[in-house]
Amino acid sequence: MATWFRYTLEAQDGEARAGVFTTPHGEIPLPAFAPVGTQATVKTLTPDELHMLDVSIILSNTYHLYLRPGADIIAELGGLHTFMGWDGPILTDSGGFQVFSLAHMRKLDEDGVTFRSHIDGSLHRFTPEVVIKTQELLGSDIIMPLDICPTPDDRREVEEAVRLTNRWAVRAREAHTREDQALFGIVQGGIFPDLRAQAAAFLVELDFPGYAIGGLSVGETKEQMYATLEDVVPLLPSDRPRYLMGVGTPEDILEAVARGVDLFDCVLPTRVARNGGLLTHEGRINIRNARFARDPQPIEPGCTCYTCQRFSRAYIRHLFKAGETLGLRLATIHNIHFMQQLMKGIRQSIREGRFHEFKEAFLARYRISDQEARHRNKEAYRARVRGHT
Amino acid sequence: MATWFRYTLEAQDGEARAGVFTTPHGEIPLPAFAPVGTQATVKTLTPDELHMLDVSIILSNTYHLYLRPGADIIAELGGLHTFMGWDGPILTDSGGFQVFSLAHMRKLDEDGVTFRSHIDGSLHRFTPEVVIKTQELLGSDIIMPLDICPTPDDRREVEEAVRLTNRWAVRAREAHTREDQALFGIVQGGIFPDLRAQAAAFLVELDFPGYAIGGLSVGETKEQMYATLEDVVPLLPSDRPRYLMGVGTPEDILEAVARGVDLFDCVLPTRVARNGGLLTHEGRINIRNARFARDPQPIEPGCTCYTCQRFSRAYIRHLFKAGETLGLRLATIHNIHFMQQLMKGIRQSIREGRFHEFKEAFLARYRISDQEARHRNKEAYRARVRGHT
Repeated sequence: MATWFRYTLEAQDGEARAGVFTTPHGEIPLPAFAPVGTQATVKTLTPDELHMLDVSIILSNTYHLYLRPGADIIAELGGLHTFMGWDGPILTDSGGFQVFSLAHMRKLDEDGVTFRSHIDGSLHRFTPEVVIKTQELLGSDIIMPLDICPTPDDRREVEEAVRLTNRWAVRAREAHTREDQALFGIVQGGIFPDLRAQAAAFLVELDFPGYAIGGLSVGETKEQMYATLEDVVPLLPSDRPRYLMGVGTPEDILEAVARGVDLFDCVLPTRVARNGGLLTHEGRINIRNARFARDPQPIEPGCTCYTCQRFSRAYIRHLFKAGETLGLRLATIHNIHFMQQLMKGIRQSIREGRFHEFKEAFLARYRISDQEARHRNKEAYRARVRGHT
Repeated sequence: MATWFRYTLEAQDGEARAGVFTTPHGEIPLPAFAPVGTQATVKTLTPDELHMLDVSIILSNTYHLYLRPGADIIAELGGLHTFMGWDGPILTDSGGFQVFSLAHMRKLDEDGVTFRSHIDGSLHRFTPEVVIKTQELLGSDIIMPLDICPTPDDRREVEEAVRLTNRWAVRAREAHTREDQALFGIVQGGIFPDLRAQAAAFLVELDFPGYAIGGLSVGETKEQMYATLEDVVPLLPSDRPRYLMGVGTPEDILEAVARGVDLFDCVLPTRVARNGGLLTHEGRINIRNARFARDPQPIEPGCTCYTCQRFSRAYIRHLFKAGETLGLRLATIHNIHFMQQLMKGIRQSIREGRFHEFKEAFLARYRISDQEARHRNKEAYRARVRGHT
C-alpha cells in the first residue's frame, strides 16, 4: 500500500488543507470534487471531456456496475479504467447505500444484506467480502467497505449502524488483497458525537489509508452536518485524506473544507444540469426560463468553459425546450467546470493563506434561495438514492 | 449570386462527378453527404465534432426552426450559423415535406398551405414567399422553395404536384433577395419520365444555381428510383450541383453517384445510430445484440473514428443497455464517420478513374439483408417524415 498511495499535506489555513493524494492512476490535488459516473460514464461526457475539465477523480457505483454489465465482464475487459476509457483515478462506493435505497427488497442480517435488483428483480447478496471482491474486479483506485447509512437522528438505528459498519470494516480489510487499491474506512454515527467518536476510534485503530465520513447530507440540518464535521475531523489522522460522501453544494463544500475535509462527491451538479439548472457565481439559474429565449450571453459572462465560449443562453434554452441531448451535455460541462473552478480557487486560497476571505467572498455573492435551502438536504438525498449522476 | 456560389467540375468518371461547390461558408467537396440537424443541432454532436468528422455541409429543417425557437429569434441572434455555432455551409429544406407529414392539419390551396403545429396545435401558413423569408432569416447557404412531394406512382397527384411546385418555384425566385444564399430548383415528377422532363425543362429555364431531385425514396422501388435518376440527371445543366433529397443508404448513394448526383442528405445514419444500428463495411450491426456483451473489439476493426479509437463494442453496448446518452453520441460519431469515409472514397475513386471498381468492391462486401432491403424505402420515408436526424 505504502508504495502506491501517499497523502502529502502542502499547506494548511485554519483547518482547511491543501494537499495531494497519489494513486496508481495519478495525483489528486486536494480538496477535490469527484463527479459521479454511476454506470461507468459521467452522464453525457467522454473521458476526454473530463480531462479537458481538469477532473482529477471520478466516482462510480459498485451496485450499478455489479448488476449491469457485471463486475466479471468489466474485469474480463481489463477493468473499469479500460472499460470506460478513463485513465485517471476512480473511487467506487460500496453499493450499500444503493441497496438500501434502490433495491426492490432488502433483508439485512449480521453477515450482509440480501436484495432484489431494481432492474430485473433478480436476487443478490452483498457481504463485506462480496463488495470487496466486486471492487477488486472493477479495479478502482479507492474502494469502500460495505456500510450502513442510518437515519441520522435515530439513536437506536445509528448505534446498530455503527456496530455493523465497524464489524464489516474489519472483514473488508481482511478480504482486501489488491495493493494497488486503497480501502478507506467509513465513519458512521449520525448526529451523535459519542457514536461518531466511537466509530472513529475503532476505524483509526484499523489504520486505513484514508477515511470517509458517511451518513451526512441525508436529512439532517446544515448546522447538524457542520457540527458533526467539527466533532469528527479532529479524530481522524492528519496524514490521511478525509472524504465527505455525497456532498455537495458549493456552500457545503466550502464549509466542510473549512472544517478539514479533502474530498467530495455528489450527483447534484450533473443531475441539476440535466434539468436545466446551471451554476453561476450569483447562484443557480434555470435555463428553461422564458427570459433566456433571446439572450445572446453565455451562461455566465466571463466563464471559460467550452459551453460558455461557444454557445448562448438562447441556444442552450432552445436545446432544452426541443429535448435535444446536446443541451444536457453542454449544461453538464458548464456545471462540472464551475465545480472544478471552485475547487481550484479553494486550493489556491489555502496555499496563499486567504481561504477564509475566498469562502466569505464566494458565499456573499452566491445566492441560496430560501426554497433551495429548505430542499437542499432532501434533494441531495434523493439524488444519491437515485444513484444517478 | 455569381460572386458567392460556384460549381467546379474536377473530374468525371462515367456519369459520376467529382467537384466543388463554393459557398459563403466554405467549399463543399462533391459528392457530399449532409448529416441532418433538424432542430439546429446534429443530434448529440457539437459543431466541433462535425468539423472533426470532416463534415462539409449540414441540413437543417425550416419547418422545425420556424416553429421553435422561431426564425425571428434566430435572426436576432445572428442567424443559424451563429445560433448553433456551426460556421460551415448549411442547407435548409423548405419545410413543405414536414408540413405534409408532421403537421396536425393541413389545407392546401393554390397559394400555399395552412397547417397546425405538431408541437402546440397553433395555426400557421406557408406560402412560397413565407418559406423564402423564413430561410432568409435563418441565413442558410442553400435554400429550397416550397414544393409538393406526391405519392410517386399516382399520376394525377404527381401532375398536380409538378404544376404547383413549378408555379411556386417562380414565386420563390421572385421573393428571394439575399445574394449570399443559393436557391435551388426542385424537380418533382414521381416515377413518370414525361413529368420529370416537363419539370426539369421548366426549372432549367428559370436558371437556378443548383437543382434538387425531390419525391424519391418515398415508397417507390430501388429500380424505379435509379431509373428516374437516369431520366432526370441528363436534363440538368452540367455546370450546377445536383442534389438528391432524403437519400440515403450507402448503396443508394453509390448508385446515385453513378448516375451523376453530387449531394445527399438523410437522417438514416444518425437515426439508426441512436437505435444502436452501426454501419460497417460488412453491413449494419446492432450493438444491443447479446453477442457483443464481452467483445473487446471496436465497432469496426481498422476504423479511425474517435469512437473506434477509444471504446469497445462491449462498452458501447453497455451504454445502450443502461440508457446512457453517451452511447447515442459515440454511435452517431461512428456512423457519420462511416458516411464521410464513403464519400471521400467516392470522390477519390472518381478522380482516379476507378469509381466503378470502388462501387463494386464496396457493394460486394456490404450486406443488405433481405429484410433491410424490403424495409429500406419505408424506413427512409418514415425517418424523413419524422424529420428527426
